[in-house]
Amino acid sequence: MQSMVQKRFLILPPPGDGDNQADLDRLTHALRDEFGAVRVPLDVLLRDANVLRASGYRATATLVREDSGWTLARIQPGDAAARRYGLACDLGSTTVAVQLIDLNAGTAAATRTAVNAQVARGADILTRIFYTREPGQEAARRAELQRLAVQTIDGLISGVLADAGVDPADCPLLIVAGNTTMIHFLLGVDAFCVFSAPFAPMFNRAPAADTRALGFGYEGRLYCFPSAANYLGGDILSGLWSTNLTDSDELSLFIDIGTNGEMALGCRDFLIAGAGAAGPALEGGISKNGMRAAPGAVDRVRIEGGKLTVTTIGGAPPRGICGSGIVDLLAEMRRSGWLNVMGRLEPGASERIVSVPMEHGESEEWAVVYARDNQGAPLTFTQSDIAQFSETKAAAGTMVACLLQAAGVEPGQVQRIYLAGAFGEHLDLESSILIGLYPDLPRDRFVQAGNASLSGARKLLLDRRGLERVEDMLRDLYYLEFAMQPNFLDLMSAARYYPPLPREVRP
Amino acid sequence: MQSMVQKRFLILPPPGDGDNQADLDRLTHALRDEFGAVRVPLDVLLRDANVLRASGYRATATLVREDSGWTLARIQPGDAAARRYGLACDLGSTTVAVQLIDLNAGTAAATRTAVNAQVARGADILTRIFYTREPGQEAARRAELQRLAVQTIDGLISGVLADAGVDPADCPLLIVAGNTTMIHFLLGVDAFCVFSAPFAPMFNRAPAADTRALGFGYEGRLYCFPSAANYLGGDILSGLWSTNLTDSDELSLFIDIGTNGEMALGCRDFLIAGAGAAGPALEGGISKNGMRAAPGAVDRVRIEGGKLTVTTIGGAPPRGICGSGIVDLLAEMRRSGWLNVMGRLEPGASERIVSVPMEHGESEEWAVVYARDNQGAPLTFTQSDIAQFSETKAAAGTMVACLLQAAGVEPGQVQRIYLAGAFGEHLDLESSILIGLYPDLPRDRFVQAGNASLSGARKLLLDRRGLERVEDMLRDLYYLEFAMQPNFLDLMSAARYYPPLPREVRP
Repeated sequence: MQSMVQKRFLILPPPGDGDNQADLDRLTHALRDEFGAVRVPLDVLLRDANVLRASGYRATATLVREDSGWTLARIQPGDAAARRYGLACDLGSTTVAVQLIDLNAGTAAATRTAVNAQVARGADILTRIFYTREPGQEAARRAELQRLAVQTIDGLISGVLADAGVDPADCPLLIVAGNTTMIHFLLGVDAFCVFSAPFAPMFNRAPAADTRALGFGYEGRLYCFPSAANYLGGDILSGLWSTNLTDSDELSLFIDIGTNGEMALGCRDFLIAGAGAAGPALEGGISKNGMRAAPGAVDRVRIEGGKLTVTTIGGAPPRGICGSGIVDLLAEMRRSGWLNVMGRLEPGASERIVSVPMEHGESEEWAVVYARDNQGAPLTFTQSDIAQFSETKAAAGTMVACLLQAAGVEPGQVQRIYLAGAFGEHLDLESSILIGLYPDLPRDRFVQAGNASLSGARKLLLDRRGLERVEDMLRDLYYLEFAMQPNFLDLMSAARYYPPLPREVRP
Repeated sequence: MQSMVQKRFLILPPPGDGDNQADLDRLTHALRDEFGAVRVPLDVLLRDANVLRASGYRATATLVREDSGWTLARIQPGDAAARRYGLACDLGSTTVAVQLIDLNAGTAAATRTAVNAQVARGADILTRIFYTREPGQEAARRAELQRLAVQTIDGLISGVLADAGVDPADCPLLIVAGNTTMIHFLLGVDAFCVFSAPFAPMFNRAPAADTRALGFGYEGRLYCFPSAANYLGGDILSGLWSTNLTDSDELSLFIDIGTNGEMALGCRDFLIAGAGAAGPALEGGISKNGMRAAPGAVDRVRIEGGKLTVTTIGGAPPRGICGSGIVDLLAEMRRSGWLNVMGRLEPGASERIVSVPMEHGESEEWAVVYARDNQGAPLTFTQSDIAQFSETKAAAGTMVACLLQAAGVEPGQVQRIYLAGAFGEHLDLESSILIGLYPDLPRDRFVQAGNASLSGARKLLLDRRGLERVEDMLRDLYYLEFAMQPNFLDLMSAARYYPPLPREVRP
C-alpha cells in the first residue's frame, strides 16, 4: 500500500576503512533515491540517533509524508518493516473515535470511541468557548480543554493498540479530523474567532507536529485534516474526501446534518460547499422531552391503523425522544394525516393529540403524546417543538436548494447522495424524505457514509499523495455563503412547509 | 541586505463582507509570491496567531531561511520591519563568542565572549566526553553539558542584546558554529563516537530547531553550521566559508592549528580538507611551564646580540610560556644558533642553556632558561619540550604537504594562506615560518582570518542563499585522511626537522 507511512529495512555499510560518514547521513543518503531529501526532526534525532550504531547498521527507518516531502519518524533496530500501522481520529465535540489502521492490509485493526472529556466543561462547543473567555483564565482554560482532548485521544490510542497488540513504535502517525473549533482547542488556540464575526478562524492548516509538543503520551507525528472555513472544518472535508466525490463523473451531493448542516455538491469538475446552523433539533436540544441518543430515547415511531408504537434505545422505558425518533414521528404523523402540509397538528385526527399548557405562559397548545414514561406520565412533542424542528429541516432543505441553484442543476441530476454523520446513519431514509429533510430522489442513489470524517482520515493515511490531493480539493472548493444568496429567505420560508404526500403513501 | 532573516510589513485586508479566510492563510498567501510556501512551526502559531487580529491586520512577518524554504519565525504588531538582527555564535570548547549582527547594515552591533561553562566538567573535550560516560549517569550528564553550553550562549545573547539595546523579538535567528563534539553536546547527543573508532559522528547536520526545545531562554530559530566529519566540524567549515575560498580563482590554503590542526586547500574548482591531532603544544599543554594565554604567560621572545628578552601577557611577572612565546623562543634560538637544524639545543651557544634533571628520572637534559618567575626561580623549556613541540609543528607541516601533494601543486602556487583561530592571530608570522610551522611564501599572501568560525556564521546570516551554497561546498569537499596517505610517516619524519636558515637571518 502506498500509504503516508513507509518503512524501509536498511543494511547500511558500517563506518570503517576510512569511511566515517555520520550515521544520519548514512541513513538519509540510503533513502534519498526513493524519498528525496528526508527531513529529520530534532526529537527523532535525539531519541533514535544511536539506534543505527547499536543495531550494527541494520535498522528500519520509518518515514511519514509531511508537506511535500518525507519526514523521518523513527529508527528501529533490525527488520521491523513488516509492522506498519497508523491512527485515524474523528475528534467530535461529543464523541471521539480512534481507529488503528493496518497500513499493509489497508484495513481497520481496532476501533474505539469515547465521550470527549471536554463535555465536562460544556455539552456544546459554544459553552466551551465561553469557558475559555473567563478574564484572567483564558490561557489556563484553553490549556485545560487541550489537555482534556489529548487525554481522550490518548486513552483511545492506548486502547486500540492494546486491542490489536500493536507496539506504538510501529504506529508513527496520527491523523485527526475535527471541526475548526475542535482543532483550535486541540492546539490550545483561542477559538472565539470561529463563532464571532467576521468568522475568520486563526488557521485552517495546523503544522505537522510532534504529538509530545501537544502533551500526548503517545509519541508520533500528528497531522490535522485542514479546514476550509469556520463552519467547514476538517471533519467535513475529511468526510468529503472519503467519498471520492471529486474523482467521480457523477454529480454528487454530500449532506451532514447535526447542530450545523454542512453540504457539498460536485464532481470531478467542480465542488461547491457551504455550512449553516441547523439548530439543535436533531440532537434533542429542543422541547423538554428531546434528548440525545441514549438508553430510553425513542428512536423509532410507527403509526399503523391509527395506532402509534415506539421503540427505544436499549429497550429501556421511554425517557424522551432523539433525532431519529422525531423524524419518524413527524413523517408517520404526516402519513396518517395527524400533521398537515403547514406542519400543524390536526387535533381531530387522533386521541393522542392533546392540549397542553405552554411553557412560561397561560395559554395552551396542541401536542402529541408519543409515549409514556415509567411513571405513566405522558411524553409530548408540542406544536412549538414541531415549529422548531421545521426550522432545522428548512435550513437543511434550503442549503441543498442553494447549492443546486448555484451550480445551475436540477435535483434530479444528482446521481449520488452521501449521508454522513451519526444522523445520516440513524435517520430513517423514507421518513427523512417524506418530511422534506432530504430531496425526493431514487432511493438507490442514497449512500450511508457512516463516520465519514473517520473514513477520510483513514483514506488519507493510506494515500502517500493524499496531502497534495486534499490541497487540490481545497483549492478547487468554492465556499458558498448561504446567507449571502439573494433568495435565501424566500427559499427558507418555503422549506418550512411539509411536502405534499406522494400518491402511494396517502392515508 | 539579502539575509537569511527577512521581515515584511503587511497591511492585510481584514475579514468581513463574506471574506472569512483564516488569519494564517491571509498571512501566508500575502507572502507566497515572494517566499513560496511558508512553513509555520507549531510554536510560532501558538505564540503569534492572535497578533494579526490584535493589530488590525497591520503586522510584520519575520521569515527565516531553513532547508530550501522559508519558515515563519514571528509575527509582530505594526511596522517592525526596520529592526532586523541575527546572532552568530562560535561555540568553542574553551571560549564562546556571540555577535549580534545588524542585518540591515550588515555589521556587528555588539560582540561578547565568555569561558564555556562546560570547562567546569573538563578543560578539554575528551575529559568532558568521558564525564558523560559514567555508567548510569550518561543521560543526566549529557543534559548537564547541554545546559552549561546553553547557559553560556544565553548569557552572551542577553549581553549583546543589552549592549545594543535590541529587542529579542527583532532577533529571530541564532547560527552556531562549533566543532562536531561541541554540537553533539549542544544537542545533548552522545559524542563518544567522535573520538572513538570508526570515528563516524551521529550527525553532521542538526535540524533547524526552536531554541526552546534545547532549553534556551532566548526564543528564536537555531541553525548549526553543518560539519563534514568528526574532526572537520562546523567551526572549520564556517571558517572556510568566511574566506570565500571556493568562490575564488586563487589557489588558497586555510590553516587552523590548535589542539587539532585543520587544513584545507582549494579554489573555485576544487576543495580538499583534512584534520589531525596537532598535540597540545600550542595550547601550553606541554612542559611543566607551558600554559594557556593568560596574565604572566610569556608571549613574545627576542634574542638580540646574545641577550634574551621576553614580554608577558598583561605585563605580569612571568609564570610560564604560551604558544606564541614558544614559537618565538624556538625561532629566535634558531636564528641565534642556540638550536640546530635537528631541533637540538646547542649547549655552548648561551649561558641560558643549562642542564636540568629530567622528570621522573635520574638523568639530565639540556634546557633553556627563558625567564625567571617572581621568586627568581628559572622558567625552563627543555629538550623534551622542544621534541614534543616538534611533533606538533611536524604534524601541521605534514598536513600542508599532504594537501599539496594530493592536489598535485607546488607550495609556490598557493596564492593566499588564511590563518584562522586564536593561534593564527597571535603567532608571529616570521617566527612561524622560520621554524617551519607555516610554508615559506611571500608574506603578502598571508591573511589573518581572526575568529573565522564566527565570521562564517555572520556571513551565513547575511546570505539568503547561503544554506544552499554551504551544501554545495560540502558536496564538493574531498575529505583527505592524512593518516591514510602512503608516505605520511616519511613526510612526518622529515617535518620534525627545522628548516635551514634563510641567508638574510643567519647569525
